[in-house]
Amino acid sequence: MNQYLDFAIDLAERLQGQTATNPSVGAVIVKNNRIIGFGAHLKKGEAHAEIQALKMAGAEATDATIYVSLEPCSHYGLTPPCSKAIIDSGITSVVYAVKDGSLKYSGHDMLQEAGIEVTYEPTERAQALYNDFFHQQETKLPHITVKVSTSLDGKVATDNNESKWITSKEVKQDVLKLRSQHDAIMTGGMTVRIDNPLLTTRSKGLKEPKRFVLTRQSEFDDNLDIFKDHDNPVVVITEGSDFEVKENQNIEVVHKDLSNLKNVLKHLYDAGYAQVMVEAGPKLVSEFIEQDLVDQLIIYQAPKMIGGQGKYQYYRTDDVYPLSNSKLFKIISTEIIGGDLKIILRKK
Amino acid sequence: MNQYLDFAIDLAERLQGQTATNPSVGAVIVKNNRIIGFGAHLKKGEAHAEIQALKMAGAEATDATIYVSLEPCSHYGLTPPCSKAIIDSGITSVVYAVKDGSLKYSGHDMLQEAGIEVTYEPTERAQALYNDFFHQQETKLPHITVKVSTSLDGKVATDNNESKWITSKEVKQDVLKLRSQHDAIMTGGMTVRIDNPLLTTRSKGLKEPKRFVLTRQSEFDDNLDIFKDHDNPVVVITEGSDFEVKENQNIEVVHKDLSNLKNVLKHLYDAGYAQVMVEAGPKLVSEFIEQDLVDQLIIYQAPKMIGGQGKYQYYRTDDVYPLSNSKLFKIISTEIIGGDLKIILRKK
Repeated sequence: MNQYLDFAIDLAERLQGQTATNPSVGAVIVKNNRIIGFGAHLKKGEAHAEIQALKMAGAEATDATIYVSLEPCSHYGLTPPCSKAIIDSGITSVVYAVKDGSLKYSGHDMLQEAGIEVTYEPTERAQALYNDFFHQQETKLPHITVKVSTSLDGKVATDNNESKWITSKEVKQDVLKLRSQHDAIMTGGMTVRIDNPLLTTRSKGLKEPKRFVLTRQSEFDDNLDIFKDHDNPVVVITEGSDFEVKENQNIEVVHKDLSNLKNVLKHLYDAGYAQVMVEAGPKLVSEFIEQDLVDQLIIYQAPKMIGGQGKYQYYRTDDVYPLSNSKLFKIISTEIIGGDLKIILRKK
Repeated sequence: MNQYLDFAIDLAERLQGQTATNPSVGAVIVKNNRIIGFGAHLKKGEAHAEIQALKMAGAEATDATIYVSLEPCSHYGLTPPCSKAIIDSGITSVVYAVKDGSLKYSGHDMLQEAGIEVTYEPTERAQALYNDFFHQQETKLPHITVKVSTSLDGKVATDNNESKWITSKEVKQDVLKLRSQHDAIMTGGMTVRIDNPLLTTRSKGLKEPKRFVLTRQSEFDDNLDIFKDHDNPVVVITEGSDFEVKENQNIEVVHKDLSNLKNVLKHLYDAGYAQVMVEAGPKLVSEFIEQDLVDQLIIYQAPKMIGGQGKYQYYRTDDVYPLSNSKLFKIISTEIIGGDLKIILRKK
């Protein structure tokens, strides 16, 4: 593994989660075995990684090599193409880790035709970084993680709706970290009303996701904590036109047809939220699963059995499907956290 | 770790599952750094490991050292005490790995008082071998493993009772091996009627467990395969006195009150079945869990979601319990088998 390319991928990983709906990219410029510039894309609409690195390198860039986590772009989007900037800089060699299949005209070809030596050096780590991005390029939908905290027998509460707490303290800490890795958290109005959650990371060092609440009702009680955050408004997505925001509630209202979840998600994507985590009750979670909208499923399973009739099973549907129509996932990893089992799965 | 003691523990592990309700024990006799005898307990009522090893060593045993996985016994049970045989053999040193707390008069003391050098060298591996035995010494009940094959959302069938197949072929192979590690398999009449299972290991190289079927009905259809096995009769445990065995059905009938599962299990223990695996439908499985009779729980979880109302959740109870009364387990290990997750848990 090339250490400079590795550094470029590191930079991309560090910035992941704040560049949506652009991919996170890192770039490192090297001349005579010394790093003379590096950069990463910070935010959609701002300079790409290559441009930042070139700025740091300045005139020194002539005859240097640039290492980039993703194939440099070749198109005029919100910013001019990086491949052109690289050519203009006098750089003579480009090494990149992942091909950008979304480009109509390949940056690789554009650079090569300008006489630059271009090397494609694929790595699994970098590839993993962009899988979601490529998927989204096609679907124009955010990447959806559904998080569930459940008993071993698939329930999120007793039949009397007692749910505090099923999983351990350590799981709660893990969930706070998960939140910071997403651009947005989505939940249902019922969860807000019953649990009165904040859905923040509760930590100064972590990036706070935008919070979205789906509700069909026309108001929320003014004692709910989530709406008292004066710095970060919560987006309430609702159907009716009569939703009422109370004094002291920091709410942005968006009107959407809630029976069309895909359309709701498209709105989030268009608004720049590409990594969305759903933390909700069984009703909304079941809708996401039933409508095949779950890209990643994170299940925290406490090794306990709740029993009862399963009124609050996390996956419960009105329709009965044949076994061959089960929703299929693939287990990516398992880990024990505070005595509970964390299972990460992906849509199969 | 002492290599001879390690060998003795190996022998005990090899014979585990066929010495019930005695513990499995291995013994190795060493003199001048050469193994001069070894043995293991094969079956309750037959020679203990130490006696077999002494027999192999013969007169050579004088001044030798014996390594035993479990503290030698000091009491007259079905056979005379091993400690006495060791003393009589002229052996001058005894090393053992696990203390036998069930002995009224310690074998350790008995040997030491006879002038033998006795060393207690505890190992975790050997301790694990005897945990169940010590537990059973107290409860006089078999060690119960409940095996469940379920979807991710805790169902063993769709609401229309379609269940073939939820887990993978590799899981089925794993279950066959599990069966051979138990003295007995217990299931319910409903499972036999609906699934028509054999509950054998389907393999010549594996030990076949005794099969027990619990039913409240007075007969079984004569087309059911499990009763056609002419070598191995199936034990049907039933309440009424009117149970009818048909021609060509190899059945032993036992009458017990089925509402008292503990009593049923006591019968199995007294009959020499100390390691019992329950492979049954949600009704019987739920009864075992609800009545706290599960020592070990093995869950095979397919990464798929079945949905529906959860008519066939594997744990479903008529009563609703508060969350604080959930049945608690501890995760011992997890493993991916054929794409499914195998979770081994123990009662907490």
